[in-house]
Amino acid sequence: MNLFLYTSKLKGVVPVWGIVLQQGSEVSLARQIFAALKTSILTGQLPAGEALPSTRALAKELGICRNTVIEAYDMLWAEGFLVRHQGAPSRVAKGLHLNQAPTAAPPPPAQPAPSPILWDFKTGQPDLSLFPLAAWNKTVAEAARTLQTDALCYSGPQGYAPLREEIAHWLLRSKIMVVDPQDIFITSGATQALYLLVTILHRQGRAFALESPSHPAVRTVLADGNYPFYPVPVDQAGADIATLQNKAVSAVYITPSHQFPLGGILPAARRATLVRMATENDFYIIEDDYDSEFRYSGSPISPVYAMCPARVAYVGSFSKTLFPALRLGFAVLPKALQEAWRHYRTFMDVQNPVLEQAALAAFLQQRKMDRHVQKMRRAYGEKRALLLGALQNEFGAAAQPWGDASGLHLALQLPGAHFGPRFTAACRAAGVRVATVAQYCPVPNEHGDKLLLGYGHLTPDQITNGVAALHRVIAKGADVVTLSAL
Amino acid sequence: MNLFLYTSKLKGVVPVWGIVLQQGSEVSLARQIFAALKTSILTGQLPAGEALPSTRALAKELGICRNTVIEAYDMLWAEGFLVRHQGAPSRVAKGLHLNQAPTAAPPPPAQPAPSPILWDFKTGQPDLSLFPLAAWNKTVAEAARTLQTDALCYSGPQGYAPLREEIAHWLLRSKIMVVDPQDIFITSGATQALYLLVTILHRQGRAFALESPSHPAVRTVLADGNYPFYPVPVDQAGADIATLQNKAVSAVYITPSHQFPLGGILPAARRATLVRMATENDFYIIEDDYDSEFRYSGSPISPVYAMCPARVAYVGSFSKTLFPALRLGFAVLPKALQEAWRHYRTFMDVQNPVLEQAALAAFLQQRKMDRHVQKMRRAYGEKRALLLGALQNEFGAAAQPWGDASGLHLALQLPGAHFGPRFTAACRAAGVRVATVAQYCPVPNEHGDKLLLGYGHLTPDQITNGVAALHRVIAKGADVVTLSAL
Repeated sequence: MNLFLYTSKLKGVVPVWGIVLQQGSEVSLARQIFAALKTSILTGQLPAGEALPSTRALAKELGICRNTVIEAYDMLWAEGFLVRHQGAPSRVAKGLHLNQAPTAAPPPPAQPAPSPILWDFKTGQPDLSLFPLAAWNKTVAEAARTLQTDALCYSGPQGYAPLREEIAHWLLRSKIMVVDPQDIFITSGATQALYLLVTILHRQGRAFALESPSHPAVRTVLADGNYPFYPVPVDQAGADIATLQNKAVSAVYITPSHQFPLGGILPAARRATLVRMATENDFYIIEDDYDSEFRYSGSPISPVYAMCPARVAYVGSFSKTLFPALRLGFAVLPKALQEAWRHYRTFMDVQNPVLEQAALAAFLQQRKMDRHVQKMRRAYGEKRALLLGALQNEFGAAAQPWGDASGLHLALQLPGAHFGPRFTAACRAAGVRVATVAQYCPVPNEHGDKLLLGYGHLTPDQITNGVAALHRVIAKGADVVTLSAL
Repeated sequence: MNLFLYTSKLKGVVPVWGIVLQQGSEVSLARQIFAALKTSILTGQLPAGEALPSTRALAKELGICRNTVIEAYDMLWAEGFLVRHQGAPSRVAKGLHLNQAPTAAPPPPAQPAPSPILWDFKTGQPDLSLFPLAAWNKTVAEAARTLQTDALCYSGPQGYAPLREEIAHWLLRSKIMVVDPQDIFITSGATQALYLLVTILHRQGRAFALESPSHPAVRTVLADGNYPFYPVPVDQAGADIATLQNKAVSAVYITPSHQFPLGGILPAARRATLVRMATENDFYIIEDDYDSEFRYSGSPISPVYAMCPARVAYVGSFSKTLFPALRLGFAVLPKALQEAWRHYRTFMDVQNPVLEQAALAAFLQQRKMDRHVQKMRRAYGEKRALLLGALQNEFGAAAQPWGDASGLHLALQLPGAHFGPRFTAACRAAGVRVATVAQYCPVPNEHGDKLLLGYGHLTPDQITNGVAALHRVIAKGADVVTLSAL
């Protein structure tokens, strides 16, 4: 960067009134003079009451034309740095000397370079190498060309109407979900939908019910707002809804299609119980359907929303089906929540940008979305089969996969193990990044025998070799993991 | 929308087990069967324990192949709607009957059509008819082509690094503002920056200081959080900083380059006083620089940020220089606020989409931005001159413009007038939309003699005729406006 302000410190240059001009800069000479004099005033080098040279004299000294100096003085005067009276020299105004502390922070201490991550089992990561970037870019360019001038303006917090129409069609054909486009609200990813729902739904004196384990997003927003939460235990079928009996909750956040992270599919009877509780005890259900598009056996799970649209806020996302930096998700909202949503969204960030919305509407309308999701379901299905085979090879009956029927990750249970921070550190040192389920539990000492393996983004080699590397760390045994048998 | 679920109510169709199949639908036959049976179970038409027909029998009745029915039954079983035992018929599971209240809301009462708005003096509206849409779309398409796969992934809450570099260059050449790109945080418009700053900076037991009048954005976020605020009076030179002496504030929100809405330019002495107070009393200054690019006399005002980067969070936006639906703004943050910002932004919506960021970086780098802003400054300058002339023509010395030196609006003072809701309603009936300054005052009975005239987006004819129409309403006199003289 061209920091001309610092050039007055260059060796051998004698500044005139603290001014060193740089010819050919994109910053005009008048502004350079203005900035240099302003700095001298603020630092006290030019004290209050000091008379400045006449514009004619300064122009001569600097070897520039007088109008340039006049322009600089006018700027200083307009901003109150100079006072002037007819016929008298311009003088520095009072009260401008700031005792500025140096603002440069000390450099952070050098960190030792971490060993490289060779096998990264992080969750929620789509395989972007298979994303049809050229086709998407074509759709974007076409969408940009069709946008008229009025689309450049604010269009309100609900989102681009043609996209809401297309999402309604998509939900019908992909999930048999009947939704009125008027109830769809476009968001900047599922994260924003969850943030807004916490903001709208928390109630004084009532806890927010969350699955334990669960994704940290909602829990963090609750903690930031000092809102209490109630952890709902999770088993292989998902959230244990019966524990909510007689609890005064403000809302229940669940992932019924594929519990995050344990992968259970919430049975219909638990769904019905939850819906009945919500109606009787006047609370709302937040249904986070974060990856049910990728289901490997049977059809996609139909949402709880379909059971009771008046009590369920359904949250969907295109971060995994398309790509995260698209920042497009949506919520299907009960009518009773829509006014508050519009208010909060308006003052939070008004709306999404229009271009991605128009592009996604076209991508859905042209059924490119359907073909892409089909292709990815096959690709992820192959990776899943490879991962399950590799786990069987390495661990045999000692390990039990959970929740592998859909999504981009599974949980791996090793009964008798207790995976803690020492274990993940040992993995990290061996080039393996892996999370424990316990990290996702707000309640300590739960699900200590389970790891999370995200595989959607990994290559076949990474899957096979990563599982082998993981097994080597575990086989090392007692210093990093408590195992009764392996 | 193709609501096949409702077709069983069609006259003359006799449904089999509540199932009416629609051939050629994008929803597969198996899913149609699944959805219909599920509805029957949830509504109680198929009670708990009811035996379903064998797959062979149902397939025959519906005239479809048996595998389709097996697939539907498998889906119902997977989701817990059916129970089955070897050799026995599938039966409806227990506890699934929901007493669903009808969810359709009554249609809203019909509103009388409002009279058309012929002259809309709304503020903050750029002239999008002059936006170089074709050049922008070209930049977008080029930017899309240059993005690599890794750019589709999350890249963190601070924003696209090349854009932060370009904004730093832009701030230097347009405002002589020296900024480290590491201190720039991209946002979804200035609105999000202000929302985040309120979230980060409010402190228990301390008020947030706001100009009165001011834009409602910050005040609304404060009110939503039940945070107290302190109104700082505004005169023709901007916020009266001296009133903050000895006040325990958590932060001060100001618009020093062009006070919104009254238009004053905060003098250097008030700026220095504010910076000194912030340092001594440990609070932060939020500097909202919403339209200083469009300054008609002299150079752009240099920001308060330049006086004290450690105490000022500077907020900028491209909504007015480019277009609102771009949703791109930024904050330049003191180091001490950056960690909290990263945290809150991550859990609010993670980051901006990447495409607009890449396009804007190119637009800045290629200096298309500079040429566009220059062109718009000329265009808005001509409109401003026309507006000032029209006001002089219609009102003469009875009206006094405030804050016309920059931006896309001015305030109009008619000493002795008192503009209230009856006045704006009378204007509206005459085809004129105009806001009063009092609407922007959190304190009642302030600035009652001032109106706001946004002109950036109006055509020359709209300006001339709109001012004439406004004058006609005012001239009607006492029933809508209290005037001592006109």
